[in-house]
Formats: sequence, C-alpha cells, structure tokens
Amino acid sequence: MMMKFDQQEEENGSGNGGLCRIIEEVPPPPQLKLSFLCQRYEEGGGELFTPPLNFAMVDNGIFRSGFPDSANFSFLKTLNLRSIIYLCPEPYPDANVEFLRLNGIQLFQFGIEGYKEPFVNIPEDKISEALKVTIDVKNHPLLIHCKRGKHRTGCLVGCLRKLQRWCLTSVFDEYQRFATVKARVSDQRFMELFDVSSFKNLPHSFSISKRNGKEQRECSAVSC
Amino acid sequence: MMMKFDQQEEENGSGNGGLCRIIEEVPPPPQLKLSFLCQRYEEGGGELFTPPLNFAMVDNGIFRSGFPDSANFSFLKTLNLRSIIYLCPEPYPDANVEFLRLNGIQLFQFGIEGYKEPFVNIPEDKISEALKVTIDVKNHPLLIHCKRGKHRTGCLVGCLRKLQRWCLTSVFDEYQRFATVKARVSDQRFMELFDVSSFKNLPHSFSISKRNGKEQRECSAVSC
Repeated sequence: MMMKFDQQEEENGSGNGGLCRIIEEVPPPPQLKLSFLCQRYEEGGGELFTPPLNFAMVDNGIFRSGFPDSANFSFLKTLNLRSIIYLCPEPYPDANVEFLRLNGIQLFQFGIEGYKEPFVNIPEDKISEALKVTIDVKNHPLLIHCKRGKHRTGCLVGCLRKLQRWCLTSVFDEYQRFATVKARVSDQRFMELFDVSSFKNLPHSFSISKRNGKEQRECSAVSC
Repeated sequence: MMMKFDQQEEENGSGNGGLCRIIEEVPPPPQLKLSFLCQRYEEGGGELFTPPLNFAMVDNGIFRSGFPDSANFSFLKTLNLRSIIYLCPEPYPDANVEFLRLNGIQLFQFGIEGYKEPFVNIPEDKISEALKVTIDVKNHPLLIHCKRGKHRTGCLVGCLRKLQRWCLTSVFDEYQRFATVKARVSDQRFMELFDVSSFKNLPHSFSISKRNGKEQRECSAVSC
C-alpha cells in the first residue's frame, strides 16, 4: 500500500505546492456504487456503453462527470483518456486505480470537501491549480469528476468558462443544468468572484474547432 | 427572394429526397429574440462571449443549442462552424442567413413541427436524414439547433447516442438535462424505438479522442 507523489510534476514547473496529489497507488476503500440500468435495444448488437452519471463533453479533449463506477469503464476507454482530475478528498477506489493503471491514465487529485450551504468554503487555490491542469493540453483527453458532477466539478468548469470569456449568465446556465435543484448560490458567487487575471496570457477560448479538410472559408465580397 | 436546393447534395450521394432544404437565401421574417444578460466581470477585458441558450458540446465537431440570436454570433464564430442543422419549419431569420453567408456556413433545414403532447408525431425519416448529416465529418464542425434546444434537438442527439451505443438510461439522462421540466415521455419513447440498424456499418462511437503528442499507452504487463 503506497502513495507516491510524481516528481515529474515539480520538474516540469507545474508543481502544485501540496494542493494536488498525483497518485500511483492508493489503499483499497469500498467502491462507490452508482449503478445504471442498461438495456440492450438491439439484439445481437454487442456491448452498450454506460457513461458515468452527469457525463458531458466540456470542450475539445475535456470531459466532466460524476464518480465513475466499474460499469462505466468500457465507455471511458473509448475516450482514450490521458488524465483524470478528481476533486474529492477521499482515496480513489481500488478498481478505479487499477483501471487507470491498465490504461496509462494519470490521476490529479485535488481534495475539496463536499460542503453544504451555508458552510461553504471552496478553496480558490485548489480550483486554480486544477484549472491549470485542465487547460494544459499535455493532459488531454482529460476527465474532471467529483462525486455527483454537480458542485465541485461545476465550479471548476465554470471557472474554465470564465477563462473562455463566457458571460456569467451562460456560465450559471451550464452550472445549473448539471446541479439542477441542488444548485447553490454560494457556488455561483464563487465563480463570479474567481480571479482569472493570472491566466491572462492564455487564449480567451480554446474551443476553436478546425474544419475538416480545408481552411475556414472567408467571405470574399468587399461589401460583407 | 429565392430558395435554392443545392445540387451538390444529390451529386455526392447524400440527397435527402426533399426532407432537407439547403437554403442559400430565404425571405426576411422577424428575428427571434432570445437575449442574455451579459456582465463584464473583468474591467478592460474585451468582449465577453454569449453562447446560445442550452449550448453544449455533443461530441468532437458537434454542438447543440437553442435558436442562436445575433448576440451569439461572436461566440459562434469561435466554433469555426461548417454547417448548421436547423430542425424547425419556420424560415431562417435574415440576420442568421447573413451570418451564415459571411462565415461560409451551410444550412441544413429539416422542418419538424414543434408538437405538444399528446399530439406528437416526430418524423423518423427527417430525424434519420438529419442524423446522416450529423455523422458526416465533412459537415463538421456542426451546430444542431431548434427553438429551445430541448425536444427536437434532444431527439436527434438521443438518436446519435443510440448510434454510439449509449444505454437508454444515459440517453434519457442527457435528454432530460436539457429538457428539464419540459421532458416528454413521447420524445423518450421515440428515441427508444428509433431504428439505428440502417447505420450498422458506422463505428459504434466516434467520440474517441486522440491523446496529444503520442499514441495511447498500452499496459505492457501480460498479467494486466
């Protein structure tokens, strides 16, 4: 039973000052059970995929979800993940650690407590460090997850959207789509106040998609 | 005032038999107003982006949303769209047609009425043709939209998920995230019954992401 800190992380200048644990092996806690009812809708059609709870694509190479269960592993393999950002303080379950090992996926753990209002204290430094990992394309394809994929994941994705210069209305709209009736004003306030100025040198949006096969067609008419 | 059918569509074998209108010019109806409250959260920080209502990334090169307003155009430009699938029968507003023209975006219109339960009759042939356009990477990056991005768009994306072999629970979970309290059992029944067998030769999932910089690392241990 070992827990190692990846020395490479310090060497390549993206050290997290103790905020992020990069885990190679962790102790074996009981595995979370977030089971899905899957039906075979096509006879003889092979395996169906079960994405994790609250799964969605955030941007090119960035995904979000709730806690992945072993039922989700075959789906997660199709994403060809390079990294996972895990936003809870609890140790990663054995089965998940084994899945990461088998598929060469690096785990970045930022232990953020799952507070309930009004006792909320989202650590800005951890979200900020997690955001740095998120926007580093060397870590893509990357999955961000917490327990339910609502609050901690929602805050990190919301801060990413601010960095992409989304207006707050749209940031909150996306947050609420995943948090549903559990949406927290305190989370939204956190996102509103989150300072993206230290990320100033990054492009406003990295969601720009390439058109397949040819460059963007520009309007050639002068009167456009 | 002209409405042309793109002849290329028939020539390249993806003709839609009258189900899909590819419009170059349309008459000028009043523009829909789906305004967003945008706030500048960073002084001197330039323009903020306003994604359309219910905007989300579906898969690589595929996006979904409600009806885009002129307030959303600067955001949409960052997506570098090649095509838009529009699922309503109403003509496209002038401002939107002009946006498409200026940015070289092709419009595929599949006129599906916005029925209300229990008078629901989602045309499977149109959804099927729209799905063919959706999965053709020559049309990517592509935005799917209807009016609110809930029902018609939700059904098309749900059928895409079936094609990607998502289990129905996950298909419905995603549908409901966008439809919220407006979720319709009839839409879900439509997705459940939708026949994907004619798409059998397509890959089960085309969401497979490439890892940046190097190939997928495989576990080298025989005992894995």
